[in-house]
Amino acid sequence: MSPRIQFPLRHPVQIPQMPAAEQLGFGNYPAPIVFMMEHDGNGWVNARLEPYNPAEHGIRFSSEEVGAVTADRWVIGWVRQNFGASWRKLSDPQVLDRLTPEGVLSIEALASRALKLAEIHRHYGLGHFEGLKAYSGHDGIIRRFRADQNAKRQNQACVRMKMPQIPEALWLSAVDAVVAANAKAGWIPTVPGYSLYIRPVMEAVNEALSVRPGTHFRFFIICCPVGAYYPGGMHANDLFVETDRARVPPGGLGSVKARGNYADMEALDRAKAVMQRIDPTVQISQLIWLAAEDFGKPPQLRRLEEVGTSNLGLRYLSAGESRFMTPCRDRGTILPSVVMDSCLELLRLRGSTVVTGDDLTLQKLIQLAEGGQLQELLGAGTAAVTSPTGRIHAILNGKYHRWQVGDGQIGAVTQWLYDRLTAMQYGHEVPPNSIRDWIVEVPT
Amino acid sequence: MSPRIQFPLRHPVQIPQMPAAEQLGFGNYPAPIVFMMEHDGNGWVNARLEPYNPAEHGIRFSSEEVGAVTADRWVIGWVRQNFGASWRKLSDPQVLDRLTPEGVLSIEALASRALKLAEIHRHYGLGHFEGLKAYSGHDGIIRRFRADQNAKRQNQACVRMKMPQIPEALWLSAVDAVVAANAKAGWIPTVPGYSLYIRPVMEAVNEALSVRPGTHFRFFIICCPVGAYYPGGMHANDLFVETDRARVPPGGLGSVKARGNYADMEALDRAKAVMQRIDPTVQISQLIWLAAEDFGKPPQLRRLEEVGTSNLGLRYLSAGESRFMTPCRDRGTILPSVVMDSCLELLRLRGSTVVTGDDLTLQKLIQLAEGGQLQELLGAGTAAVTSPTGRIHAILNGKYHRWQVGDGQIGAVTQWLYDRLTAMQYGHEVPPNSIRDWIVEVPT
Repeated sequence: MSPRIQFPLRHPVQIPQMPAAEQLGFGNYPAPIVFMMEHDGNGWVNARLEPYNPAEHGIRFSSEEVGAVTADRWVIGWVRQNFGASWRKLSDPQVLDRLTPEGVLSIEALASRALKLAEIHRHYGLGHFEGLKAYSGHDGIIRRFRADQNAKRQNQACVRMKMPQIPEALWLSAVDAVVAANAKAGWIPTVPGYSLYIRPVMEAVNEALSVRPGTHFRFFIICCPVGAYYPGGMHANDLFVETDRARVPPGGLGSVKARGNYADMEALDRAKAVMQRIDPTVQISQLIWLAAEDFGKPPQLRRLEEVGTSNLGLRYLSAGESRFMTPCRDRGTILPSVVMDSCLELLRLRGSTVVTGDDLTLQKLIQLAEGGQLQELLGAGTAAVTSPTGRIHAILNGKYHRWQVGDGQIGAVTQWLYDRLTAMQYGHEVPPNSIRDWIVEVPT
Repeated sequence: MSPRIQFPLRHPVQIPQMPAAEQLGFGNYPAPIVFMMEHDGNGWVNARLEPYNPAEHGIRFSSEEVGAVTADRWVIGWVRQNFGASWRKLSDPQVLDRLTPEGVLSIEALASRALKLAEIHRHYGLGHFEGLKAYSGHDGIIRRFRADQNAKRQNQACVRMKMPQIPEALWLSAVDAVVAANAKAGWIPTVPGYSLYIRPVMEAVNEALSVRPGTHFRFFIICCPVGAYYPGGMHANDLFVETDRARVPPGGLGSVKARGNYADMEALDRAKAVMQRIDPTVQISQLIWLAAEDFGKPPQLRRLEEVGTSNLGLRYLSAGESRFMTPCRDRGTILPSVVMDSCLELLRLRGSTVVTGDDLTLQKLIQLAEGGQLQELLGAGTAAVTSPTGRIHAILNGKYHRWQVGDGQIGAVTQWLYDRLTAMQYGHEVPPNSIRDWIVEVPT
């Protein structure tokens, strides 16, 4: 167990009520407390917990708010005495009640959060992030899953984007601190399948308008309570093979969670529109991405890379034996998924054959599907855990094709992996000894 | 002439002095006034001029500032009366002097600029920008160069990234307004070769942690006074051919100025480090990028795309005739440069042969260089206007190669293009009739 670092909670806030479980969805409601620190060019400084948004959680400034107080004028005062900050009543008693030292942000804090238009991440995409979850177990214990892997992956992104790494103990302590603070605030849902999504972000904040590396940085962790990814229960998806666009360039930033990897909001729309014309009953949920460096070849000869924003895996029969295969990650164009890693390890532990498809082309996928060997195809990632595929759609040489995966329903291994991972995450199962460290309890 | 739209200057500021010309460099000092507006899901609202940074240009909050007033306590007050905002003296007279309506930002404005950690551009790279310049002429007139082309290009980025377009008249009026305000503030340098760099930026600001298109947007224009790109005068550069990494994926966002296209801060470093080992006397200034979709082929057979963040062009001899060639832009992986467009048009006007190199491979470039036909190779872009190349360096099949371009010095056509463009921009030459609209005077 790494030594635990404590962080001050600056500017404590009036905690809003978490929305009802059925309203949560995914990524809609920020939890009230965030972790923040800055890198001043020499090192990480000012590590602290803060309210998510001073304008929302501190003083409210909207005209509605003004209308809510009975007086027709009000005053917010900030008194600095002997270089120590304290709040003083200045006016309307109803406003005064909100201006206790515990209840609001100081103007100073507000100014420190001012929008800086020249911050370099605003211009040159110098930001990356992570995604992981904390789970409120059936026993009331909060657990996190392989967060150390996310810490390592984010530090890899730092190397790749010329940003300062964060010591793993600091990174993990920050995650635990912000999770514990939001747990105390009542913002970790306890409904089975629900969780607290954790989003650590690093961005270069030096102010400059020409292309150059970052010199100063901001690191923050924002959380949000999330519902089950498949509200109606997990179901098999329809995927579309993208043959006109690639996700990332060769040798680019594809193996790290760089912001720019996620900016093509149009690609999935186009696939959906194409499918709408062909068969409006099909709802395309994600794209299968093919390798950019194979674009000189016909689509069939290109290698598979990812499915949407998840890692891709498939189970197929080879001479009667069932095998699980993932594309080769060595070319730096695939994000190494912690969840897919975990799936592969679980499969190895139960004695399944796991192989890396160095040459997993679309043609190979088609051959497996048409030969009746393709039993399952799934995406693996933090948001959904596992995403089963029912059918694959593609337009090749102007002709529409559709292939079914297995029986078109959730595959047995996909379901098994989902069940194992969530059982560990919610405390129903203790991981086997060799992977005991996957689950860590968060002290609250 | 499009109808001119006026914008209020909200929260006028105490204007700081522009740094001395020799300190300016490129992109280091934000001009004091920015343009801002928001898109609320229905349309663009609240178009206005504002101080660059409330924390810097409005109220100052640092402890140094507190020490600068003689009283040991001070109060900042904000009075809202009948829903109209006005400032009132509350305390220390020395502070009061700073709290005139013209001198400070309201707390409301400060809160509206609070850092929102969940803004979606912070996570998924949903931002794009433009770059253009305004020039203070020898006659004191401020001119802009082909800004309508930047407006159109930014609107193309909007389409590509699912963001709302800005009517061209509004976009141009915003540019003119922010240029005029900064000119009035004394922030457009009058030194020959210096200019005001203009950076319009759009970003998706809805708060959400899952991948989805933007619904609300921020558009701002920030400016900075810039020195000549080559402080010691234009000189021929050394370029390195990047064979391990590509700039953008096929079908991706390469034809628009998406943030993510500029995030690989490591690539040029690697080339410089390689060259340092081979010949420390060579200073690599930029990379030559090769097409991602050709990465299945040997580097020699790949097509050229861009040079650094600029468009690439070359002049060569073919059967005794001089030709100017640029790579084909039709594949969506090259940003259509306004300056390169202008170079091509100027060359056409003087009767030069201009061709598009649909098959401009590295091999073809090498053949021209080794056959003594390659006379010039340049980058064209807003920052430098034209960037001449002296030598090209590459490692192919593990072997280091070096080719000289022309006589290794600034080419005649590169210099001619630079001279023509800057002469128009600073008002020394009036553009020929067919391109008279390239130059527009900014009313001040």
